[in-house]
Amino acid sequence: MGEFFDFIVHGGDYNPDQWLKYPEIIDKDMELMKAAHINSATIGIFSWGLLEPEEDVYNFEWLDNIMDKLHENGISVILATPSGARPNWMAQAHPEVLRVEETGIRNEYGVRHNHCLTSPYYRMKVNKINRLLAERYKNHPALKMWHISNEYCDCCHCELCQEAFRNWVKNYYHNDLEELNEAMWSGFWAHQITDWSQISSPKFRGENHVPALKLAWDRFVTDSHISFYENEIAPLREITPHIPITTNCMRDSLNYQKFASHLDLMSWDNYPAWGKGNDKAIAAETAFAHDSFRSMKGGKPFFMMESTPSIANWMDVNKLPAPGMQTVTALQAVAHGADSVQYFQWRKSRGGHEKYHGAVVGHDGTGDTRVFKEVAETGKILEKLKDVSGTWIKAKVAIIWDLENFRAIKHFHGYNNKHRDYTDECRKWYKPFYEMGITTDVIPMDADYSQYDLIVAPFLYMLKDGTGAKIKEYVENGGTFMATYLTAMADKNDLCYLGGFPGDGLREVFGVWAEETDSLPDGQSGKMKLYKGSKEYSVDKVCDILRTEGAEALGEYLTDFYKHSPAVTVNNYGNGKAYYVAFRNDEDFAADFVNYLVKETGVKAETAIKPVEGVIIRKRGDFVFLFNFADGTRFVELDKPYTNAITGEKMDSIISLPRCGYYVMK
Amino acid sequence: MGEFFDFIVHGGDYNPDQWLKYPEIIDKDMELMKAAHINSATIGIFSWGLLEPEEDVYNFEWLDNIMDKLHENGISVILATPSGARPNWMAQAHPEVLRVEETGIRNEYGVRHNHCLTSPYYRMKVNKINRLLAERYKNHPALKMWHISNEYCDCCHCELCQEAFRNWVKNYYHNDLEELNEAMWSGFWAHQITDWSQISSPKFRGENHVPALKLAWDRFVTDSHISFYENEIAPLREITPHIPITTNCMRDSLNYQKFASHLDLMSWDNYPAWGKGNDKAIAAETAFAHDSFRSMKGGKPFFMMESTPSIANWMDVNKLPAPGMQTVTALQAVAHGADSVQYFQWRKSRGGHEKYHGAVVGHDGTGDTRVFKEVAETGKILEKLKDVSGTWIKAKVAIIWDLENFRAIKHFHGYNNKHRDYTDECRKWYKPFYEMGITTDVIPMDADYSQYDLIVAPFLYMLKDGTGAKIKEYVENGGTFMATYLTAMADKNDLCYLGGFPGDGLREVFGVWAEETDSLPDGQSGKMKLYKGSKEYSVDKVCDILRTEGAEALGEYLTDFYKHSPAVTVNNYGNGKAYYVAFRNDEDFAADFVNYLVKETGVKAETAIKPVEGVIIRKRGDFVFLFNFADGTRFVELDKPYTNAITGEKMDSIISLPRCGYYVMK
Amino acid sequence: MGEFFDFIVHGGDYNPDQWLKYPEIIDKDMELMKAAHINSATIGIFSWGLLEPEEDVYNFEWLDNIMDKLHENGISVILATPSGARPNWMAQAHPEVLRVEETGIRNEYGVRHNHCLTSPYYRMKVNKINRLLAERYKNHPALKMWHISNEYCDCCHCELCQEAFRNWVKNYYHNDLEELNEAMWSGFWAHQITDWSQISSPKFRGENHVPALKLAWDRFVTDSHISFYENEIAPLREITPHIPITTNCMRDSLNYQKFASHLDLMSWDNYPAWGKGNDKAIAAETAFAHDSFRSMKGGKPFFMMESTPSIANWMDVNKLPAPGMQTVTALQAVAHGADSVQYFQWRKSRGGHEKYHGAVVGHDGTGDTRVFKEVAETGKILEKLKDVSGTWIKAKVAIIWDLENFRAIKHFHGYNNKHRDYTDECRKWYKPFYEMGITTDVIPMDADYSQYDLIVAPFLYMLKDGTGAKIKEYVENGGTFMATYLTAMADKNDLCYLGGFPGDGLREVFGVWAEETDSLPDGQSGKMKLYKGSKEYSVDKVCDILRTEGAEALGEYLTDFYKHSPAVTVNNYGNGKAYYVAFRNDEDFAADFVNYLVKETGVKAETAIKPVEGVIIRKRGDFVFLFNFADGTRFVELDKPYTNAITGEKMDSIISLPRCGYYVMK
Repeated sequence: MGEFFDFIVHGGDYNPDQWLKYPEIIDKDMELMKAAHINSATIGIFSWGLLEPEEDVYNFEWLDNIMDKLHENGISVILATPSGARPNWMAQAHPEVLRVEETGIRNEYGVRHNHCLTSPYYRMKVNKINRLLAERYKNHPALKMWHISNEYCDCCHCELCQEAFRNWVKNYYHNDLEELNEAMWSGFWAHQITDWSQISSPKFRGENHVPALKLAWDRFVTDSHISFYENEIAPLREITPHIPITTNCMRDSLNYQKFASHLDLMSWDNYPAWGKGNDKAIAAETAFAHDSFRSMKGGKPFFMMESTPSIANWMDVNKLPAPGMQTVTALQAVAHGADSVQYFQWRKSRGGHEKYHGAVVGHDGTGDTRVFKEVAETGKILEKLKDVSGTWIKAKVAIIWDLENFRAIKHFHGYNNKHRDYTDECRKWYKPFYEMGITTDVIPMDADYSQYDLIVAPFLYMLKDGTGAKIKEYVENGGTFMATYLTAMADKNDLCYLGGFPGDGLREVFGVWAEETDSLPDGQSGKMKLYKGSKEYSVDKVCDILRTEGAEALGEYLTDFYKHSPAVTVNNYGNGKAYYVAFRNDEDFAADFVNYLVKETGVKAETAIKPVEGVIIRKRGDFVFLFNFADGTRFVELDKPYTNAITGEKMDSIISLPRCGYYVMK
Repeated sequence: MGEFFDFIVHGGDYNPDQWLKYPEIIDKDMELMKAAHINSATIGIFSWGLLEPEEDVYNFEWLDNIMDKLHENGISVILATPSGARPNWMAQAHPEVLRVEETGIRNEYGVRHNHCLTSPYYRMKVNKINRLLAERYKNHPALKMWHISNEYCDCCHCELCQEAFRNWVKNYYHNDLEELNEAMWSGFWAHQITDWSQISSPKFRGENHVPALKLAWDRFVTDSHISFYENEIAPLREITPHIPITTNCMRDSLNYQKFASHLDLMSWDNYPAWGKGNDKAIAAETAFAHDSFRSMKGGKPFFMMESTPSIANWMDVNKLPAPGMQTVTALQAVAHGADSVQYFQWRKSRGGHEKYHGAVVGHDGTGDTRVFKEVAETGKILEKLKDVSGTWIKAKVAIIWDLENFRAIKHFHGYNNKHRDYTDECRKWYKPFYEMGITTDVIPMDADYSQYDLIVAPFLYMLKDGTGAKIKEYVENGGTFMATYLTAMADKNDLCYLGGFPGDGLREVFGVWAEETDSLPDGQSGKMKLYKGSKEYSVDKVCDILRTEGAEALGEYLTDFYKHSPAVTVNNYGNGKAYYVAFRNDEDFAADFVNYLVKETGVKAETAIKPVEGVIIRKRGDFVFLFNFADGTRFVELDKPYTNAITGEKMDSIISLPRCGYYVMK
Repeated sequence: MGEFFDFIVHGGDYNPDQWLKYPEIIDKDMELMKAAHINSATIGIFSWGLLEPEEDVYNFEWLDNIMDKLHENGISVILATPSGARPNWMAQAHPEVLRVEETGIRNEYGVRHNHCLTSPYYRMKVNKINRLLAERYKNHPALKMWHISNEYCDCCHCELCQEAFRNWVKNYYHNDLEELNEAMWSGFWAHQITDWSQISSPKFRGENHVPALKLAWDRFVTDSHISFYENEIAPLREITPHIPITTNCMRDSLNYQKFASHLDLMSWDNYPAWGKGNDKAIAAETAFAHDSFRSMKGGKPFFMMESTPSIANWMDVNKLPAPGMQTVTALQAVAHGADSVQYFQWRKSRGGHEKYHGAVVGHDGTGDTRVFKEVAETGKILEKLKDVSGTWIKAKVAIIWDLENFRAIKHFHGYNNKHRDYTDECRKWYKPFYEMGITTDVIPMDADYSQYDLIVAPFLYMLKDGTGAKIKEYVENGGTFMATYLTAMADKNDLCYLGGFPGDGLREVFGVWAEETDSLPDGQSGKMKLYKGSKEYSVDKVCDILRTEGAEALGEYLTDFYKHSPAVTVNNYGNGKAYYVAFRNDEDFAADFVNYLVKETGVKAETAIKPVEGVIIRKRGDFVFLFNFADGTRFVELDKPYTNAITGEKMDSIISLPRCGYYVMK
């Protein structure tokens, strides 16, 4: 049973505020929600204009009615704070609530998520309306969760934010200009900062080539969101301490790994682009994201706060998912640790930007559609899987995917500037574990390593304070740690480690010195092989040229002037092993090498079911999930007797899954 | 005989104001114009700087001389108003005449067509100089037509324009904020407008995601051009009521279908990009444009106000047209209803931006060039075709290509966002009629349908008020109407019709419900077939998934989960038929299906000459035009005896046309 | 022996100012420099922030120490003026030192090379700090050269610069508005300038379509750099008249051909992108650049002020050069006339933008790297080639590559707008001479032609005053001159020559009239052949259609409507010959036609060694250099006995060169 709900939440964004003049539609909504097995509605996300039509004139009656109506119909409410979009009158009277772009020009009123994060007036107003909402609904029986704002992201460059940034920098660098100048390496190009007032956000028409300043700004932007958020939730914590709080994250817009500790549970918005010919890859990407959000709170269930029951409207090409894919999207989330399946959106808007975004109910307004029926089917299934809710997931393997490293990699200039897709690199190493049915966490570099037998850290370019020592200790104590090229180049200020790479003590741990790094233009491929076996693998985009210093070479380059120099090494260090994969490899190498690491470390899949191409096996608690993401039918031989958790029937020993097929078994 | 001229006008832009210091060149112009069979010159387009060298100091002497000289040489004058480019001193003293961009930054002086449309000062000055021109030349025997400004286009975001836009919006929405908020669907993202002063133009740094606001701005921009134009012509109508007025339009820069009623005749600027390997397609595009400008005034002859006698200079690659192509360009215009063949430009500038744009006279300054000789030949031919002038063209078939729908399609987000080329879709359906020699109008959705036996409306996404009822009535009364995918989704405010698509009553007319719409990424193609026949056609980019509700399926999809569902339907409704082609088809399907529709409706080609690939046959009045746009020679068998209208000779019964070959026959 | 040094300078950018807190690193630098055979260090390039930490508070002690330390270690100093980057406090207190972009928005502090060139305050400060440097170090024994600022480039649009531009324009056009208006051809679009105050820089949001204004701005930008530079060097000339002055140029950022006369020697920054599959082409491009900088001072030795000993960091993909390539880069420079081999940079920064740019010493801080050892090897070789230094190079052949024409070609609109790569066109004609071992100068059109037997002028679109007469005189006196398409179209104001192209009297010299010019879209190729031989060559992008007027056709087009019209002509004029190649040819044609021209004119390679594909032979003074830029080994048969100038050994008569192989022989 879940911590906050004792069932799997099935619901989504509901915007009756767009339909107040169409009361028959709101009545129809109640009827259709029940027909669709919906048990929750997220409301109020962008309602400020209605709640406060004039400054300090409030109107909650409509919301009272909706809350009551939902409650009467057995639908619990996740109530949003409205800070994601502000009223027109507010921007007109207080233009400082709007963001200023890098140009220095203030935005006009429009769109959403465009508020200054620092404006005292805006923070005051947000705090006030949140307080009024909490006061009014603190005892409302429908209220089950707070949803803070919406998809926090991006930043503002106004003078208020500049001042906040200056203070942030001053604090971060201990009020010490000397420390700051060292961090910024300001001797380069004589950019010595002689007064804190000289600090300004990085911008294309100003300071745009100082990586440490860019990292400081990134950190400030996350911290100013957290500070903004803390201001939002203060009245809620005070008035409704019993109500959990979350906000819907996006994959990498902010450092959610830092944000996580401020939330009661993680939630995120999931929009896989099914049907464009690479469903297996999309499924793996989605799984990676689920696992990363789950890992942010140590394996705790999270919410899939948004997903589309059909198509999105903002992709270049919004392909219809095949029949069944909506249910698969839902069950995949649950299999990876989600306690909710929520949609954006319940009903399509009549006008505006997102009117063609998929919804449970379309412009026809009926339940007589393929999409509606599939959602209702999903709802029924989720009711059967009630016992899954609340189950945590723990892993023995972790991929380090670190949102500060993600940023640091974006900022530095050098080697192969065209290929910096850090997340793809992490996914490339995640995928073989995932395909083997091995549960894998996706963690920041400063997570607790103690639970893991194997940690894989692709392209770990930047190290946070203490990371070198942490990895050293982990390996000394028997852990297996694998790194790839350009590892441990720079510290948190993007200052290079001196004394040869990998730095921060890791040259010793890996037993190698990466003397040079080559970059290969698109279309130029090198080759390497492992000593065990004769297979040749391609070397693309980037590769370190190593000198071993105690490590054993497991394979070598076959091309270019570094032919016969080591391409993969292992170093026995303390009780553990440190592997170094010096080149940017392809999926084929990752699969083979993960296979080797799995054997070496003895980490295990969650079930003994033999993997089949295209079929993904997940275990959560007692429940085993199978999905077929391949185009054709797949047959799977089960390792023991199972019961179908949805139908209650016994499973055959060999089962078939068509495209988009799934099973949940116990 | 034409309404305004009793011959085909042969002339073009003449800029003696650039050569006042080279009097021998102006004398040479007169000699060369006569040699080139030029009978008209358009002058004064960008002459303001010379006409008013200092504020309120005027100089018309040079223009008097030019007018007189042209008249003495038998060349009539089309006199332009100079508002297309303003003097440097004016921008310096009155910067408000310059446009403000979306950034909010006012342009500096430069280029042309960059004036604020609202500035009272600029309107006053335009009115004044136009009045002075009209007063001075009202009785000049050379003056035959007014050419207002030049290529009106684009817009200004200054505060004066914002205020004008606010008033426009207030008026359009009946001074009713509630109506406005419903139209803008401002409940979405809580953008309720609580005061008219909150209205501002859509811009990337402000409100950029409200389709209804974008449509309002588009409409305002056309209306503010009309208002600007009405201010321009007021003194001309007063002082020279006998002189017709036009302005040179571009294909889709403004809503010319609305502008049309304010002009005495349509005129447009035609720059086909011949010679790049697709002359047949270019010819069809050009024909489509000619037919659209002709249709704007119900079949009335129009002017081809600009065309190049050689190359342009602004295309990426300005390929020389093959010998003869200049004459073909001229005759094609005449065949489609033009009463003029005019060139930009008579003589190449010595300096500035357009000095390498083709002209009748080049920098060599002589008549001894291929280009000059071809123009002279064209002039001689046009003299032979004098009797064509003034002949209207009437059609039984219409393609709906609507400039408001064109804009609405640009603005909405959803389905396949990469493929929104509405005009191409309209041309795709126009082309088979054109190739069969069937005269086709190109009309807005609110035109009079009564003359047509068959109307084809590709991608009729947005409906203006009353369009649903209009189509219903047309079909009930026996008309044949064909629509394609994503038809009747939204009203004039881009608010979706509720109750299932196609909306506005058309679900009943077509007898289908488009429950969902699929989008296919580039490289993914579906297939369909018609039940009559076994040919398979490709389904690309977008397709509706239909449920028939009374309609008969004529064909079905062969691919994806909607395999075997209807792809083409027909509904017998009243005395007529409503066809629905649910997918984005290719040219092959369009050709076959038009062939079918032509048989079903009995519409006829203008002549009984059997079509030959690459050869286009047009009839205007008694004159039959043939053009060969194919690369190789083509042979055509005539259906009856004809006389060559140029040479007066009898035509053979089988005639040959080389590349760029043409005949005009009676 | 060189004019300024009696050895080949081996050194580069040294930034101890970044390491003042790491004194052990500076000591290590001295040790390593000696080990690397470094004899020079360029210091102080971006040191202003350290030299003047607060306004008018100076700190030279650290620089005294570095100067002394370098001197003690036998390393001479090239001292930079620090104007390339200004202190933070200065921008804060005097924002007018920062540039204003075309938007009109002033930059914030950041990056470098972004100072206003006009600001009186900035000029005063630059002059003052340069004076202080000169006073302080005038007698320092290490000081051997001044390096002014760094990579001067780009421009500022502030009001101070506008005023300076206005004055420049007023002066250039003799304070005569009528002359100005004629030059700007302001009758076009009625842009008559009635007051000098109306002049403003060309900008996208203002006047952006007047080529003459763009050319004026380009000229002003070079002139304002020269004026800025003259202000920089005034105190240096006064206080240290014995110290030579240079600044490091880039290939085409300013008109260095004009700048040259202000420098004591040319120097430039050379970053060949070796190893990406086209080393032969890169080598030719590099050679072209070396020869152009050498030609700017009539064959005088120049400095290669920057080059990377390994990789850059700012290319898309920074591929490691193969072993040996660093030495080849150095020797290639020397072979073409360089008296220095200098690196950017001595040691990698720890932080900032360029920390991954190659350096002699990496982050490991040792001499135990491939890169360091190769630099040391180069240093040893350069010591052996001491006698090369100071040797001028004189050529009999010149390619005209003119930096004003380069700009004019960028600005005009017409014909093929996609293909305007003027420099590539010049290189295409340079390459065959280079591959044949024929020394070739690369000169502006207004250079002295008297030393040349053959001048090739590709795409000589714009002529400076007097160029037509100069070419005429050259040919009359027996010279051979070859031009290509679109030659002599416009004068220095981009005003077209009247009377038929090529203009300015060259129609007579070439004996042809280019009546029209065709442009071919990508993918459309024409063909031509020379009458001697049956080989067909491709005609791409642009071709003139000629009428001969005295010239003899040497070849003809084989395609399009101009089939059989002349494609290549020669005219005997006076005692010389004028060739016209009317089309944009490929490398194959250039090679064959240069071969023909070489035979016709009798110009000779520097040695009698038979060229071998991929091997380049250069002669400088008594030294013969051979390089192999091909991927595989090449064998060369020597024409006579040689001694290896590096080892002192006799050379074999047949020698082999591996990839990146080289020899220097006497």
